[in-house]
Amino acid sequence: MIQVTKPFIPDRKTLDKYLDGICERAWLTNNGPLVQELTQRLEDYLGVQNLLLVANGTLALQVAYKALGVEDEAVTTPFTFAATPGSMKWQGITPHFADIDPNTLNLDPSQAEKAITERTQALVPVHVYGNACDHDSFQDIASRYNLPLIYDASHAFGVQYKGESLLSCGDAATLSFHATKLFHTVEGGGIVFKNRDDLERARSMINFGQSPETPNDIASVGINAKMSELHAAMGLATLDSIDQIITQRAALIQEYHHCLKGHVEFPQRRGSENGAYMPILLASEEQASAVDSSLQQAGIRPRHYFSPALHETTTYGNDDACPVASDIADRILCLPLYPELTTHQVKWVCEHVCKNL
Amino acid sequence: MIQVTKPFIPDRKTLDKYLDGICERAWLTNNGPLVQELTQRLEDYLGVQNLLLVANGTLALQVAYKALGVEDEAVTTPFTFAATPGSMKWQGITPHFADIDPNTLNLDPSQAEKAITERTQALVPVHVYGNACDHDSFQDIASRYNLPLIYDASHAFGVQYKGESLLSCGDAATLSFHATKLFHTVEGGGIVFKNRDDLERARSMINFGQSPETPNDIASVGINAKMSELHAAMGLATLDSIDQIITQRAALIQEYHHCLKGHVEFPQRRGSENGAYMPILLASEEQASAVDSSLQQAGIRPRHYFSPALHETTTYGNDDACPVASDIADRILCLPLYPELTTHQVKWVCEHVCKNL
Repeated sequence: MIQVTKPFIPDRKTLDKYLDGICERAWLTNNGPLVQELTQRLEDYLGVQNLLLVANGTLALQVAYKALGVEDEAVTTPFTFAATPGSMKWQGITPHFADIDPNTLNLDPSQAEKAITERTQALVPVHVYGNACDHDSFQDIASRYNLPLIYDASHAFGVQYKGESLLSCGDAATLSFHATKLFHTVEGGGIVFKNRDDLERARSMINFGQSPETPNDIASVGINAKMSELHAAMGLATLDSIDQIITQRAALIQEYHHCLKGHVEFPQRRGSENGAYMPILLASEEQASAVDSSLQQAGIRPRHYFSPALHETTTYGNDDACPVASDIADRILCLPLYPELTTHQVKWVCEHVCKNL
Repeated sequence: MIQVTKPFIPDRKTLDKYLDGICERAWLTNNGPLVQELTQRLEDYLGVQNLLLVANGTLALQVAYKALGVEDEAVTTPFTFAATPGSMKWQGITPHFADIDPNTLNLDPSQAEKAITERTQALVPVHVYGNACDHDSFQDIASRYNLPLIYDASHAFGVQYKGESLLSCGDAATLSFHATKLFHTVEGGGIVFKNRDDLERARSMINFGQSPETPNDIASVGINAKMSELHAAMGLATLDSIDQIITQRAALIQEYHHCLKGHVEFPQRRGSENGAYMPILLASEEQASAVDSSLQQAGIRPRHYFSPALHETTTYGNDDACPVASDIADRILCLPLYPELTTHQVKWVCEHVCKNL
């Protein structure tokens, strides 16, 4: 059986060393030394400032909205994981969907601008598959309408764009460190804020609104969105291997592209390849379905990632028309991708894809 | 230095055995086998049904409100941790505070009833220090006003009340398994639902609203509130020692009561003693402050738990008058309590308390 992905398990001795420290200190959570160390090491590795680690990637989005004062409506893409609109609607923000660019599969800036209403309080584009959004255009719109620009950068760990980290774009960029991601902390997430003030507000919010400056008061609304020391330990042990992980995944993507070029479409890439996903676009819904069935029969588990487009779901559906997203969602497949996968297996997967075209 | 609490660290070999399994399976989260095992073992140990494990105790409250349709106002106590109103306000629910009973320090049912308005959609009493609320009265009010009754039972792990688990009371009872709790999963929480339907709705909500029954749709709003396998491993290893933990903590409480009886007041206990906290009430704010200073100087760290009363904070303050809660918050101290504490240390703490009375 070849799954679409497989969590990376770091060297056990490295992990145990961190666990020894946790047990010795009996400091298990609440901004412990490993969370602090991971924050510093990730800021250095990613080339960013003002990183706040949190319990998971959905909470990263929820805290970013709250820290930036987003409460009413936000414009986003329907071609994303359910966490993007879910994080909004859970806390009373209405997601308003605009259509995507058929080449990059990211939110189309011109469509996003058309979707802005008087109630819009943020733009929330997603760097789908780690593929950089058209940041210059989004920044221009955000500035003209005076809206916070929050990127769901769950897939964009380590992506470089125009000479800097893609995570430095926007007022906030949120990361997911879920077990299935190329860098993970089992469950976890992060927010890179442009401004230090927003970071500090968010830091209080993830710890019940408590702040060292006002010990006898609750200065802001807050919940618990803290990353634990155990999860930080997994992150630190994984970070030791991150260059190797990205190199291996990127090489597998090259192999896929080599085998499938001319047979299927690939989304147009913007920014460096971080090896996050291996998406292909089939010619039609029928072809995508046939390829999927054939792969499943061979014990290969691709994923219709993302399908259905979220403007067509019961929970998030509304009158927003996004025909490009609907079409893409019908034709997309993500193929298996994880470091242990061999080039032989990749070729085998590609054979099964091609024989159904 | 004697802290107010110290996280329990389970036997390392037991913990390692669980970690071996996690690494071998490479199944790190998403309702894995250890989360399933912990759910079953906790249901058996606690004597409850319909338990859902989640990422932390605040998310337990947030998911309970959402699963039970609470969106507008809820009546609760101001004498609680900031997580209780924080979990509400974060997702748009207005906490409306009613005063507490001066003996049990729990929400006073008659005050709660007076606080009900047309907008009230739930009663959210807290079993403070694991001390059972007056459930019969709350159930009566909830039935008469047709309101869901949601207990914040963060402190009430293992409490028996009128011959059954206190967690069986209410439409939902939420638990915190934070590292500082007597039973913990590092970070974690749980919800005990009265009805199976509510459990299943919540199960979908903690996994992005996805449901196996509707694979091509998002059937409900959802976020990520899943407990990881690593955290479940810590819970399983801790659960092996839970009877010993509770016995040791309860014995220390007895020792405290023996030493301090006649010198300070204790909240009146309802339900079995689970050894969660060691609260004392001093005669005045001045006396509480003097005792605190003296203990701090001796390297003992008690906690003003809970102070300030939340109706007096910037974030949650409003016109609700709760004079009893205000008075209690000024006079309360929680003394150090954890299994490793010796009776000798307890006597020493008590001496420092008594010499300031």
